[in-house]
Amino acid sequence: MVLKQITHLTSIDNLTKEQINFILDKSKQMLNILNSKKTLNICKGKILACLFFEASTRTRLSFEAAMHRLGGNVIGFADASTSSAKKGESLTDTIKTVQNYADIICIRHPLEGSSKLAAKYCKIPIINAGDGGHEHPTQTLMDLFTIMIKKNTISNLKIGLCGDLKFGRTTHSLLQALALFGNEIICISPEELRMPNEIKDKIQNYGGKIFQTENLNEVINKLDILYITRIQKERFISEKEYLRLKGRYILDKKIMSIAPKNLFIMHPLPRVDEINPEIDNDKRCIYFQQAFFGVPVRMAILEIMLKI
Amino acid sequence: MVLKQITHLTSIDNLTKEQINFILDKSKQMLNILNSKKTLNICKGKILACLFFEASTRTRLSFEAAMHRLGGNVIGFADASTSSAKKGESLTDTIKTVQNYADIICIRHPLEGSSKLAAKYCKIPIINAGDGGHEHPTQTLMDLFTIMIKKNTISNLKIGLCGDLKFGRTTHSLLQALALFGNEIICISPEELRMPNEIKDKIQNYGGKIFQTENLNEVINKLDILYITRIQKERFISEKEYLRLKGRYILDKKIMSIAPKNLFIMHPLPRVDEINPEIDNDKRCIYFQQAFFGVPVRMAILEIMLKI
Amino acid sequence: MVLKQITHLTSIDNLTKEQINFILDKSKQMLNILNSKKTLNICKGKILACLFFEASTRTRLSFEAAMHRLGGNVIGFADASTSSAKKGESLTDTIKTVQNYADIICIRHPLEGSSKLAAKYCKIPIINAGDGGHEHPTQTLMDLFTIMIKKNTISNLKIGLCGDLKFGRTTHSLLQALALFGNEIICISPEELRMPNEIKDKIQNYGGKIFQTENLNEVINKLDILYITRIQKERFISEKEYLRLKGRYILDKKIMSIAPKNLFIMHPLPRVDEINPEIDNDKRCIYFQQAFFGVPVRMAILEIMLKI
Repeated sequence: MVLKQITHLTSIDNLTKEQINFILDKSKQMLNILNSKKTLNICKGKILACLFFEASTRTRLSFEAAMHRLGGNVIGFADASTSSAKKGESLTDTIKTVQNYADIICIRHPLEGSSKLAAKYCKIPIINAGDGGHEHPTQTLMDLFTIMIKKNTISNLKIGLCGDLKFGRTTHSLLQALALFGNEIICISPEELRMPNEIKDKIQNYGGKIFQTENLNEVINKLDILYITRIQKERFISEKEYLRLKGRYILDKKIMSIAPKNLFIMHPLPRVDEINPEIDNDKRCIYFQQAFFGVPVRMAILEIMLKI
Repeated sequence: MVLKQITHLTSIDNLTKEQINFILDKSKQMLNILNSKKTLNICKGKILACLFFEASTRTRLSFEAAMHRLGGNVIGFADASTSSAKKGESLTDTIKTVQNYADIICIRHPLEGSSKLAAKYCKIPIINAGDGGHEHPTQTLMDLFTIMIKKNTISNLKIGLCGDLKFGRTTHSLLQALALFGNEIICISPEELRMPNEIKDKIQNYGGKIFQTENLNEVINKLDILYITRIQKERFISEKEYLRLKGRYILDKKIMSIAPKNLFIMHPLPRVDEINPEIDNDKRCIYFQQAFFGVPVRMAILEIMLKI
Repeated sequence: MVLKQITHLTSIDNLTKEQINFILDKSKQMLNILNSKKTLNICKGKILACLFFEASTRTRLSFEAAMHRLGGNVIGFADASTSSAKKGESLTDTIKTVQNYADIICIRHPLEGSSKLAAKYCKIPIINAGDGGHEHPTQTLMDLFTIMIKKNTISNLKIGLCGDLKFGRTTHSLLQALALFGNEIICISPEELRMPNEIKDKIQNYGGKIFQTENLNEVINKLDILYITRIQKERFISEKEYLRLKGRYILDKKIMSIAPKNLFIMHPLPRVDEINPEIDNDKRCIYFQQAFFGVPVRMAILEIMLKI
């Protein structure tokens, strides 16, 4: 139906509310299949090309796992150095070539807008697996799925986004999706790492409620979900600036002792030191479970976009 | 039959005319299967080892895609840095080891003659996927297949080879195969990058017709196929020399406006700037289709050499 | 039965004699299946994650081959540079994440004890594929299997371990296993590269017999098996020290001419120059066959640990 129209997934903006709901429903089915240890064969003979021009453990491995769990195959590269980019090939030429070898492509590239450009020239479906500091829509879908599973709804919640909201692409896409489903969002960040205005404006245009603060302790008691992100060293120009900001928000036993009982802590991972491992076994800390949900959600997306 | 004797494919010289025809016929069958979206299972349980001591997108990914389309599996490495070569292991030791893990090996290595050396010590079939500036026989087979599909014959054509004919391994193997099938070949290159004499001599020995020129415009009107290649930076010692020669032949809208209606433009890819992307949508430009044909041709080769 | 208790395989110490015998029996069955060219499907839908923080050809490719021969799939990385370790992620976080994507993990990491640490946090089975200069238990199992196939027993033999016995992890695990099965072990090494005392003490505690010498020629005639290892450059701090020691024991035609007829030469590979390739065709040299046995042994381990 509506979903048949998802040709490419380069931005969470590509999706309507109905399409997102459809993906979350399908993800639930995939989760049940995974939990039942049943084997799927629906992607037998199909090929996913994973083109990672930037390193990744989580996203690449979970896409590959998702394709294998569906019975399909994977080709690709894990960093730009083993691709023809080294010989000076343009991204569009790489895409025009690889589309001949696969049925669907997932791409991570350091350049903002790269996956949109790729999609323009590609006759098979493209999934954006991160384009620089820009967007990462499948991360957003697995974040929404995690909230759905834990809170049984993705609407009318109070959700704190905390950390690097300027460069952290995961929070940009997530903010938009959360606003779309009518949640209240509290942006918690140092002034230098605030959510960009163009993203906030977009949200406010369709009625989303956003508040902004620098003080986590002040708001933590009101939250249903606290989504914390890594201060990303690789996006900074100055080491000094990075070091000054990175220790700003740290979750530990002390802060968890004053946090609400029904607050869930999420994180896109990898973390560096913004979450102290001493709280990993706290039932409210669900970031590794969130990582697991990447598999059923990506299975759902692959199945839907391959139109099987 | 005859084909049962293809143990290794290190050079296009390994093949007789009948064997080449047999491979092209089998490739046609594979193309039909791919187009029908049918799933094959004939390599189930088989393993292809892809040993890439030099980076490649196209060749590696299309070999892997071919093996997966046949229902088989792939192991290997995408560059020498993740192999035991780093620990000082010799190529022959790597081969003597990996032959224990796979059913067929495809190898790319910077050293001329490396795959022939590998074949000498290997009890499973070896496919040369490029040995330095030397040969790349599966590229030649997919080039022949492209011509066959587009011109319905691979004989009695006028074919221009243009660009770096000295270092470009793809043109060396292709020249021999084209001569074998009775085509007229026009070599178009700057004096410094001419086709090596030993290759021309070999061809003339079995009656091939070769002409040589530096001027593309002068001959373009007589051609059925123009096969242009990249001036390969990585084969040059001096940056200056490279820069002087690389802009010599550039295909753009202007030159295509005077080119014959039934001329096809081929290129082994990746291109740098020898073909302006403004002509990519011209029906005569078939280089991305040529890349696609790598899959059915490599499927055919894998099936034949695995003797399934 | 007993084997159901193998959760993780981080050290050969994790295994009882019965468990080792069980693995060797199962390996024999796998070898028969491989030789009969039959196709297995018992790991269909299962995923092995190969996490190689250090380069490897042999171990990684044979694990991948083993999983494919069982009908299963593989995800992972071949060196740390394409993983999130680059972003500062801890090993335990990588494990807590990847365990969500796979059914079993095999890990190589430069740090001693890394796989034991990983196992502590991992809810799916972990196999140590080498942790620095420490242990490499599946290598030991394939070494035992090789001896079993060639000598029809793994007890009451005279076995020489020769070369770098200080840093060579393969010999540490092997020594323990050989002692467990009641063999006599002769350690042959320069004084600087002697087997560490803590390992020798451990063995002597359960009644193992060990002798030590610097002189290979003196003892070669008494041996059933000579297991020689590479002097590992990457474990040395000084280039000079490395160069001084690396030429100490070299097997060539001359030494083979005085060696017993029923002596077998083993080597974990890769070799550098401690075995002259001129003796590769000597029937007593079984190191490449030993490499091949990595596949059936790892198939057996995967099947047993996946509890299929």
